[in-house]
Amino acid sequence: MSASTTLSPSTSSSAPPAYAELLVQLNRIHRLETIAQLLGWDEQVNLPRGSADLRGEQHAVLAETIHAAASAPQLGELLAKLAGSTAGGAGGAGGGGGAPALGEDERIVVREAQRDYDRATKLPVAFVRAKAAQSSVGFHAWARAREADDFAGYAPVLERNLELAREEAGYLGWGERAYDYMIDKHDPGLSAAVIERLFGELRRELVPLVGEITSSGVKAQRELLRGFPVAAQREFLREVTARLGFDYERGRIDVSLHPFCAGTGADIRMTTRFNEDEPLDSLFSAIHETGHGMYEQGLPLAHHATALGRAAGMGVHESQSRLWENQVGRSRGFWAFFEPRFREKFSQQLSGVSSDALYLAINAVEPTLIRVDADEVTYNLHIILRFEIERRLFSGELAVRDLPEAWRALSRELIGLEPDSDRVGVLQDVHWSDGAFGYFPSYCLGNMLAAQLWEAVRGEQPGIEDAFARGEFGGLLGWLRRNVHAAGKRYDALGLAQRVTGRELSPAPLLRYLRERYLPLYRAG
Amino acid sequence: MSASTTLSPSTSSSAPPAYAELLVQLNRIHRLETIAQLLGWDEQVNLPRGSADLRGEQHAVLAETIHAAASAPQLGELLAKLAGSTAGGAGGAGGGGGAPALGEDERIVVREAQRDYDRATKLPVAFVRAKAAQSSVGFHAWARAREADDFAGYAPVLERNLELAREEAGYLGWGERAYDYMIDKHDPGLSAAVIERLFGELRRELVPLVGEITSSGVKAQRELLRGFPVAAQREFLREVTARLGFDYERGRIDVSLHPFCAGTGADIRMTTRFNEDEPLDSLFSAIHETGHGMYEQGLPLAHHATALGRAAGMGVHESQSRLWENQVGRSRGFWAFFEPRFREKFSQQLSGVSSDALYLAINAVEPTLIRVDADEVTYNLHIILRFEIERRLFSGELAVRDLPEAWRALSRELIGLEPDSDRVGVLQDVHWSDGAFGYFPSYCLGNMLAAQLWEAVRGEQPGIEDAFARGEFGGLLGWLRRNVHAAGKRYDALGLAQRVTGRELSPAPLLRYLRERYLPLYRAG
Repeated sequence: MSASTTLSPSTSSSAPPAYAELLVQLNRIHRLETIAQLLGWDEQVNLPRGSADLRGEQHAVLAETIHAAASAPQLGELLAKLAGSTAGGAGGAGGGGGAPALGEDERIVVREAQRDYDRATKLPVAFVRAKAAQSSVGFHAWARAREADDFAGYAPVLERNLELAREEAGYLGWGERAYDYMIDKHDPGLSAAVIERLFGELRRELVPLVGEITSSGVKAQRELLRGFPVAAQREFLREVTARLGFDYERGRIDVSLHPFCAGTGADIRMTTRFNEDEPLDSLFSAIHETGHGMYEQGLPLAHHATALGRAAGMGVHESQSRLWENQVGRSRGFWAFFEPRFREKFSQQLSGVSSDALYLAINAVEPTLIRVDADEVTYNLHIILRFEIERRLFSGELAVRDLPEAWRALSRELIGLEPDSDRVGVLQDVHWSDGAFGYFPSYCLGNMLAAQLWEAVRGEQPGIEDAFARGEFGGLLGWLRRNVHAAGKRYDALGLAQRVTGRELSPAPLLRYLRERYLPLYRAG
Repeated sequence: MSASTTLSPSTSSSAPPAYAELLVQLNRIHRLETIAQLLGWDEQVNLPRGSADLRGEQHAVLAETIHAAASAPQLGELLAKLAGSTAGGAGGAGGGGGAPALGEDERIVVREAQRDYDRATKLPVAFVRAKAAQSSVGFHAWARAREADDFAGYAPVLERNLELAREEAGYLGWGERAYDYMIDKHDPGLSAAVIERLFGELRRELVPLVGEITSSGVKAQRELLRGFPVAAQREFLREVTARLGFDYERGRIDVSLHPFCAGTGADIRMTTRFNEDEPLDSLFSAIHETGHGMYEQGLPLAHHATALGRAAGMGVHESQSRLWENQVGRSRGFWAFFEPRFREKFSQQLSGVSSDALYLAINAVEPTLIRVDADEVTYNLHIILRFEIERRLFSGELAVRDLPEAWRALSRELIGLEPDSDRVGVLQDVHWSDGAFGYFPSYCLGNMLAAQLWEAVRGEQPGIEDAFARGEFGGLLGWLRRNVHAAGKRYDALGLAQRVTGRELSPAPLLRYLRERYLPLYRAG
């Protein structure tokens, strides 16, 4: 790291002193948060089995420390002072009242800091405690219910989590718009109404498209790929992710039960998992996390502690992971370059697998009941299903006790499969057990935004797939750095789509992309 | 981990409420300290090269947080209150003044908490800052000086570090006894006078003993051991350390540049390093760290946050690592069990190495200029040299500028070798660059205590080496758990020796042990 890429807060010389003080406080909070992330990473990657109790206590003491810093009265006073400067600044250069005005960037920093401060201070302590207790209860109740296929035993947890979500929305001033609050929490600026419209348009064309693909006689055979030694998989995956542009000087990849990406751009810790008979699973998990990691690495280092250097939201984050995983990683260009390398490493395992069969395995489409096993085409249907359920739960159209039946009906309608057990239906995901409503839509929004960005970059760089075929991915990464990463939280998902692509966020690019990629492959049958 | 081994503070029902509150605060500080340890471990084991700046900032913010907790006025008030209870308790059961009395254990907890509180509060902020700044300056000055063989460029750092040490001792009430303060910091209860007497006795007999060994015609040939694949070394080392008794359910071993052991008994992180041509180096490093790790794992889990569950001092810690590394790991019994396993794993590499040659390589003795390369016999002479230099520096007998000359003279006298460059003389160790005076003696005290404990356990368990030959090490570990680990900080090194062995700490057992182990081996020539 060069001396110029310092982590110290940077501020323009004209900003008021309170702004510099705000940066000091935000930096402290951010550093503490990065420590909490490291504890979380270590827990998944390294923690000895018998050390879980200590880790729980470390998390608790750190969470207390972070909360104390994030809700400190001095922070509130600084923000109140700066709100004055913001108003002054908005009135014109120089502002009124003698306080120096804030620039546009500084106003964004203050706005987001205020948002975080509100979330840290407006929830009564008793509520925060109740929610933390419920989170632990919820996880265990869900795990038990899934094990025993007992939705009825889990229903009270969901009831309570819905109550708590409504209560939380109330404290934060969202009144009756509890579901919008939950969505905004993960994807600032989005709402249930906007998502309903986007998902409605997507669904209308996606369901028949899936039908067209699955009725084709062509079937991918992923089971052809067997017996890939882990050490060689690891080497190949490392070569791929480094060439895509992940900076291993400021990050690493390890192994965990479920792949994830933690840390900040100054120290990214991502993971994958290995299975000798699922080489594509570890590879694409790694590429997916590499997309997340490169986004974080692209956020401006000097601003990691403020909105100018933090991710725009979950949907934008997913757009980055999915663009690299799908638009790039499953493309002809990518495999034109990497297939010879893949075959060199695994000549024996791939000796009976033709290039066409390999490419089809990489782009296998097959409806499944389980979201996390879904391909990139049908995955969106799983999300639409969950959004529809969440929307109805919050609007009161659907009672918790009727959830399994609603799930089965939607699954039949959307995916064409009906779970014969709640274990592979409504009980399959952990999210709701922790009260994480409004989280699922981000995945599909990410797919839409990825496709829209992909269309835009292809418009500007028509030879981009040829570059992939030469092993050159820097053109894409540079474009994303300039257009998406450098912006930090300046724009939400909708604003970013508009600004970067010149159009409103829409499912049309995703549908075009899926048709272009999959129909030729599956029409061949 | 069973539900009964909780990390929550435990307190007797008769202790005053302030004591329970003290435990809450000490627990918080301890958990924060364990997080700092994890950051340090991760830095040595995992940290990407470019992420050092962030790690530095994480350390800084955590150190601030810990210092704030360790010097909180509320903590001082609690201790003041409990000092009253201590006095009352000392006067007899029930005490006076209505405050419930503290038991013996609780008084130890309060005494040590007061000691830590004094260290956290008696140093002026300006001094702490100056010392921190000097620490960074010192390290770089040392690294540069060693590189360039330029002691003169390093001398001002040493002058300043001596000044700071004297100043620190003054703040903490040690007046003119600055060196005693530095020793007490690492080994409570010890002093320069005691060490001078012990080392004097040791030196008198050790120098001729080394002469006897090295004048023998027998020479160990460690260079016979070449080309040991790292993966197999790792497996063997894991088997050895697990069988010695390291609990891998609450700890792990990884790789770092310099081996170390971090964490607490609830989550021990130790390291070793691998070199295909130095299989004994990685193995004995791992056994050494295993000794440290098993000590921490043996400290009472419910008391890790207080003196009742913390290590007695550096010397006692070293006694544990060295006992397992040397008395156990280099014994005939140990190798009677492990040699067949070692040969099974490395049959090719060991095919031309006889059992006698292997055992001699394990017990190689050869004077060297470099402390960290020294065997267990001559190692003590390196420590005596450093202690003598430190003692004279603090007494004023020796000026910093005369240090290289004094080093050369002592090296000749003690080790029989004279460095032709300060790089392999006075500039070889990092310790003094960080102001860590009084640290070196612990290593040799650890050797003495290890030998004294070893004599005691052999007295009680005459068949202990036969047990080793059967792969049974639980008798020794159980004895150490009961006699050393369970005591926490109740006794210092001197008190522990007296209590466990019935005799004062003395170099005699170490000398007897070295003669018994090495003379028969080297007399054979």
